[in-house]
Amino acid sequence: MKVMLLIAHGSRKETANDEIKRLAQQVQAIGGEDYAAVVAAFLEIAEPSIQQGVEQCVELGATEVVAVPYFLAAGKHVASDIPGELACARAGHPQLSIELSQYVGDNEAMADLVLRCSRLAG
Amino acid sequence: MKVMLLIAHGSRKETANDEIKRLAQQVQAIGGEDYAAVVAAFLEIAEPSIQQGVEQCVELGATEVVAVPYFLAAGKHVASDIPGELACARAGHPQLSIELSQYVGDNEAMADLVLRCSRLAG
Repeated sequence: MKVMLLIAHGSRKETANDEIKRLAQQVQAIGGEDYAAVVAAFLEIAEPSIQQGVEQCVELGATEVVAVPYFLAAGKHVASDIPGELACARAGHPQLSIELSQYVGDNEAMADLVLRCSRLAG
Repeated sequence: MKVMLLIAHGSRKETANDEIKRLAQQVQAIGGEDYAAVVAAFLEIAEPSIQQGVEQCVELGATEVVAVPYFLAAGKHVASDIPGELACARAGHPQLSIELSQYVGDNEAMADLVLRCSRLAG
């Protein structure tokens, strides 16, 4: 059973964290063929943390977790903090497969998304 | 003449800032009908700053600037810092139209992009 762990930075603004949880629901709605569930988690500030998010995946019955960094550029968080957290999660759950996917900024469809956004008032 | 100002946070990792500049080039390549040019700018840490980016737009001959926040959630940067910088830029360039667009996280196509990323190894 495969579960997506959608990892965002985490904000002091609770409404910003709620956006991520809503996005997780939207991904689940369109990605049901690939993922039994989509769990939102936060690297810093907000909860669930990455470790708590992995626990949620296990409680849902996951045998395979695909961690998707919801980050735009490969700064320190993408390059080392998230891989470090996932290494820690793997050590605590040796029976679980935890894979790290591409981060969202590293996708060829992003230029098109930027163009779409520019056409909509902020 | 319309120019896009693509506003990212800015990173201490120069390679992360270079990603944004490459993305600006990609947007320009596919958005040539809408925008004569796409200029990358950074809210913090990296250069050009937003004010420097607006100057670049003016030097390119822009009469209209569309500012696109390359941010994923409506935290403080999107809600107040970027609008504040643009208000400052408008005050310095009263002849220039500066519009603020939707930020990239606030787009219905994002769930699909997350799903695509999850299928690609990080």
